[in-house]
Amino acid sequence: MVRFAILGTGRIGAMHAGIVARQPDAAVTWCYDVDHDRAAACAAQVGGRASTDVDAILAADDVDAVLIASPTNTHVDLILKSAAAGKPILCEKPIDVDLAKVEACRAALADFDVPLQLGFNRRFDPSHRAVRDAVAAGEIGALELLVITSRDPGPPPPRAILEACGGLFRDTSIHDFDMARFVLGEEVTEVYAMAANRVDPVFAELGDVDTAMIVMRSASGALVHVNNSRRTNYGYDQRVEAFGADGMVRSNNHRPSEVSRHGDQATAARTPLLHFFIERYAAAYEAEIRDFIDMLAAGGRPSVTFDDGHRALLLSEAALQSYRENRPVTVAEI
Amino acid sequence: MVRFAILGTGRIGAMHAGIVARQPDAAVTWCYDVDHDRAAACAAQVGGRASTDVDAILAADDVDAVLIASPTNTHVDLILKSAAAGKPILCEKPIDVDLAKVEACRAALADFDVPLQLGFNRRFDPSHRAVRDAVAAGEIGALELLVITSRDPGPPPPRAILEACGGLFRDTSIHDFDMARFVLGEEVTEVYAMAANRVDPVFAELGDVDTAMIVMRSASGALVHVNNSRRTNYGYDQRVEAFGADGMVRSNNHRPSEVSRHGDQATAARTPLLHFFIERYAAAYEAEIRDFIDMLAAGGRPSVTFDDGHRALLLSEAALQSYRENRPVTVAEI
Amino acid sequence: MVRFAILGTGRIGAMHAGIVARQPDAAVTWCYDVDHDRAAACAAQVGGRASTDVDAILAADDVDAVLIASPTNTHVDLILKSAAAGKPILCEKPIDVDLAKVEACRAALADFDVPLQLGFNRRFDPSHRAVRDAVAAGEIGALELLVITSRDPGPPPPRAILEACGGLFRDTSIHDFDMARFVLGEEVTEVYAMAANRVDPVFAELGDVDTAMIVMRSASGALVHVNNSRRTNYGYDQRVEAFGADGMVRSNNHRPSEVSRHGDQATAARTPLLHFFIERYAAAYEAEIRDFIDMLAAGGRPSVTFDDGHRALLLSEAALQSYRENRPVTVAEI
Amino acid sequence: MVRFAILGTGRIGAMHAGIVARQPDAAVTWCYDVDHDRAAACAAQVGGRASTDVDAILAADDVDAVLIASPTNTHVDLILKSAAAGKPILCEKPIDVDLAKVEACRAALADFDVPLQLGFNRRFDPSHRAVRDAVAAGEIGALELLVITSRDPGPPPPRAILEACGGLFRDTSIHDFDMARFVLGEEVTEVYAMAANRVDPVFAELGDVDTAMIVMRSASGALVHVNNSRRTNYGYDQRVEAFGADGMVRSNNHRPSEVSRHGDQATAARTPLLHFFIERYAAAYEAEIRDFIDMLAAGGRPSVTFDDGHRALLLSEAALQSYRENRPVTVAEI
Repeated sequence: MVRFAILGTGRIGAMHAGIVARQPDAAVTWCYDVDHDRAAACAAQVGGRASTDVDAILAADDVDAVLIASPTNTHVDLILKSAAAGKPILCEKPIDVDLAKVEACRAALADFDVPLQLGFNRRFDPSHRAVRDAVAAGEIGALELLVITSRDPGPPPPRAILEACGGLFRDTSIHDFDMARFVLGEEVTEVYAMAANRVDPVFAELGDVDTAMIVMRSASGALVHVNNSRRTNYGYDQRVEAFGADGMVRSNNHRPSEVSRHGDQATAARTPLLHFFIERYAAAYEAEIRDFIDMLAAGGRPSVTFDDGHRALLLSEAALQSYRENRPVTVAEI
Repeated sequence: MVRFAILGTGRIGAMHAGIVARQPDAAVTWCYDVDHDRAAACAAQVGGRASTDVDAILAADDVDAVLIASPTNTHVDLILKSAAAGKPILCEKPIDVDLAKVEACRAALADFDVPLQLGFNRRFDPSHRAVRDAVAAGEIGALELLVITSRDPGPPPPRAILEACGGLFRDTSIHDFDMARFVLGEEVTEVYAMAANRVDPVFAELGDVDTAMIVMRSASGALVHVNNSRRTNYGYDQRVEAFGADGMVRSNNHRPSEVSRHGDQATAARTPLLHFFIERYAAAYEAEIRDFIDMLAAGGRPSVTFDDGHRALLLSEAALQSYRENRPVTVAEI
Repeated sequence: MVRFAILGTGRIGAMHAGIVARQPDAAVTWCYDVDHDRAAACAAQVGGRASTDVDAILAADDVDAVLIASPTNTHVDLILKSAAAGKPILCEKPIDVDLAKVEACRAALADFDVPLQLGFNRRFDPSHRAVRDAVAAGEIGALELLVITSRDPGPPPPRAILEACGGLFRDTSIHDFDMARFVLGEEVTEVYAMAANRVDPVFAELGDVDTAMIVMRSASGALVHVNNSRRTNYGYDQRVEAFGADGMVRSNNHRPSEVSRHGDQATAARTPLLHFFIERYAAAYEAEIRDFIDMLAAGGRPSVTFDDGHRALLLSEAALQSYRENRPVTVAEI
Repeated sequence: MVRFAILGTGRIGAMHAGIVARQPDAAVTWCYDVDHDRAAACAAQVGGRASTDVDAILAADDVDAVLIASPTNTHVDLILKSAAAGKPILCEKPIDVDLAKVEACRAALADFDVPLQLGFNRRFDPSHRAVRDAVAAGEIGALELLVITSRDPGPPPPRAILEACGGLFRDTSIHDFDMARFVLGEEVTEVYAMAANRVDPVFAELGDVDTAMIVMRSASGALVHVNNSRRTNYGYDQRVEAFGADGMVRSNNHRPSEVSRHGDQATAARTPLLHFFIERYAAAYEAEIRDFIDMLAAGGRPSVTFDDGHRALLLSEAALQSYRENRPVTVAEI
């Protein structure tokens, strides 16, 4: 039985807590949040005690692992405290939106030997994973073209969230950069990004963009395209297409049902896509936590590492710099 | 160069004439119709001369073959005249809606040795044919279940056409009976039909039905379902699904384009289906005429025979009798 | 908090127990099975105590409801005991395979006033339910044709299960009969069934069939087709298609992912379908138990009733009689 | 009746000639080729006389229009000769692969007033055109993202053809650049291209690339992605996806039939895509010639102009320069 402290019990933290509580070999023993009521509400749902004192929780003898789902700018601090306490860590992405902080964290972590798994949930989606597995198995031959479509449903998030998120490339595209690395099985070396404000003036006001097209080159010479938007009207558009000499494998969108309609205006019409990440990646979040628990039980290393988080952030930085300077940027420059 | 006389230049005859004219090794030399203007209009489009004198045409020395597309109740007469004249025949389905006339025609044809191909166009559709070919190749193992969906677009045909057509089973389901025989590769032995008036009162007034579900058993024990309607609001619904121990193969509907739409109400929405047989089976009609011409050139036997027309009509009769008496009817009874 | 006794902790019972245990407002307090080890194993997974004494469980003061998932031939006994104890009941289908026993049970239940919900899980599937809802909302106009495809994955169940299951019509088709009633929103009045042994000789040895095609007529004149097989090689084939003047709505098959493959032999190839009911109807089982719990909380009547179970069994009997006598059978005859 | 001279009767020219010959209001009167036998073979198929003397043909009084389908490096000369002879021109793309020659041709054409339609066949494809029409009708709101997938089937063309074709950007991507302009309804202003040799060493030997990803920006700020490969193993991959605030519209791939297969390894498997442009764009080529003939009859201006050819070539040049210098290139620079 792995006893978890949930650090941060907002929407995502509460979702993770629920998944942990459902596992037969795991339990939530502590729910931490700066807002005690929110921690208590979560604990009431999933079991365990609520607290606003993270140090006390990390010192408790009924905590085997922590799940960090607090605001991004607290991740590094909680990671380091948890590592110092010797607790295995499952931390939501991103590590931080500030590359310097991430690199300092990496240095500091060298002093500790605790497993740290980063929450790139999409790696655990059965459809995307099937694409990765097919590529890794050589099913399409050497990967030549990788096309990632990743568009969030609208309306855009609240301004406060946008202000803290680090911008499109660090908040949204970072998932796609990780997916690219996951499917490629190698590093991306060069990035070029075009971007625009097309969705909402709030992004421009914040010096951010809401619409982007990125092309990248991998170490072995595969080409990668990512396109992003902060708003669709048809749900969460999440597709990955890998192409090579021996074929193409693709993960397509998910919907809440398999119903289709024929009428005088349209045929084979499906429902809108699943709304957003909570719905679309429900199975992935569950698999992610299972993977973490199973890794703890088996004693291996995490399947998604701090380094994965660092690497993805480097690509975000490269994309941002590319966009700002309107030139291709090598990752080595960052 | 195969020189055709087109016997009957209504909508279907004119369509056939156009296909013949497009073949590099065929030409239309005569267009016959009881309505001279109609014959002349067809001839103006495709070449050849117009006439209302079928005997003269059959006696002409520039006619190598006839294509019969006149009203159904004239088919037998034109078949026999053409056979007597020694002209190979491609005749639109059905031979006739009167079983006795068909059987008399069969007897009379025994005196002649001319190739006669019956116009079961759907056998030449690439999608349906792929189903047949897969079954014949043993791809799904022994056929166990065959499901044929066949629904015409609305509104219903004009009353005059309905009066002459022989009713749903002889006019529409007959295509599906032929398709069943084509895919099965064996005879149907027993038929049960449920039917109803759901589409338009005109069918009831004529003692006809407009909606039907049929189940049948083949000689080897495969089960077959056909469902029919005289009206859809989404186009011509034509599907064939064959199932066996080793899998399922299916021919799906055709549309005028491959465009799909995503919006806030629906995703992956396609256009309505191709409207009706002229559009849906354009490639099949072309392949049918090619097959006939190639057969004449190669000297073999027609791939769709008078006997196929007779057998399909027997199933129509069995379905009608089954519906009227509300009991399963064996084909042997007919 | 609704405290459940799980009566019968085989594969299905254990699955239900797990779902109950996951609900925030429900708990498993007792696990009953004739095999104590099996009950104990289930209790270890989901909480509660294990027992082989159903009377003691029904007398316990920590049981608010029972979930019956024991062998079919024990359902009636457990229903009546539970009803006598005043416990609301969620009972797996079918009530029994013996119509006389079901009718006796119905009579006996008249003495009690406990909610009894029957486990026709498919009614809670989001895809099938969307078809029902569309029909009920008048989206396709009056229903004219209803086509239900329902084929189990192979290999066939063990002989012991087949011997007890009541045969294809009472064990498998009964789900489709219930689905037909669910989508129709009215009763079926007449049934004709063709059936065959095509899958495995074991069915013939047991006097059973493994392959069937059924046509039915509803009170208002809609036509219904069901086709069944005891074996597919591509997963659990579960489709419902409703057709009317204003269109068609269809629930299509479900798969474990949305990945598709393009290669030199095939394109757009998907994975095999979800294997069987546990996988395919996971969401439906969850929704079914939620519906039952919510009904208890709200104080209404069950959404799937004993009468629904009785009616579906009548259709099974009619199909069986139709098959045996090779004639259409009216439900009124049964 | 529009009487055509076909200038160039290789594979594409012969295909065009066949289409012209099938039109009821058009005919082929002359077939020109430097290879007399080839011209004669074409004439034997479609009618008309064969000649190797283009000047004589242009002087003949039975030529109302010319269709130029000769090798690319002869297009400019034949265009100018035809224009001087006052013959309306339908010319295969590209005008030339040498931008200077194209611009000189443009200048020279100013002296003549003959309609010249450029053969960007994809504009006439029903699926792509539906995307354009939906965008033009405002169906998806302002266009924000446009993704064009365009991959040729392998193996690569013969070396001699590759040597003359101008390279990937001028030979293949040019179609996608035209499609982008067609769907955008405005000009592209900036281009960035990544490219690679992944398919065959022959491309590298010729200083060419075979695999590319391009991003572009339009005048109004829409972002466009094109990805190309010189080889697929599943057929001709041709897709266009347009995205905006109000939805997404997409043209998907075409196949020779609508058959699908279910088995133990895969379900819903379709056939490989239509092989290449002759098959995939058969309807488009027909519609293109109809459009040209109808334009001549109606007296308007061509729907695809010399300027469209020039503009697309400018984008090819920009892509090539971008690739060579590894920087975004504005079209204004070219």
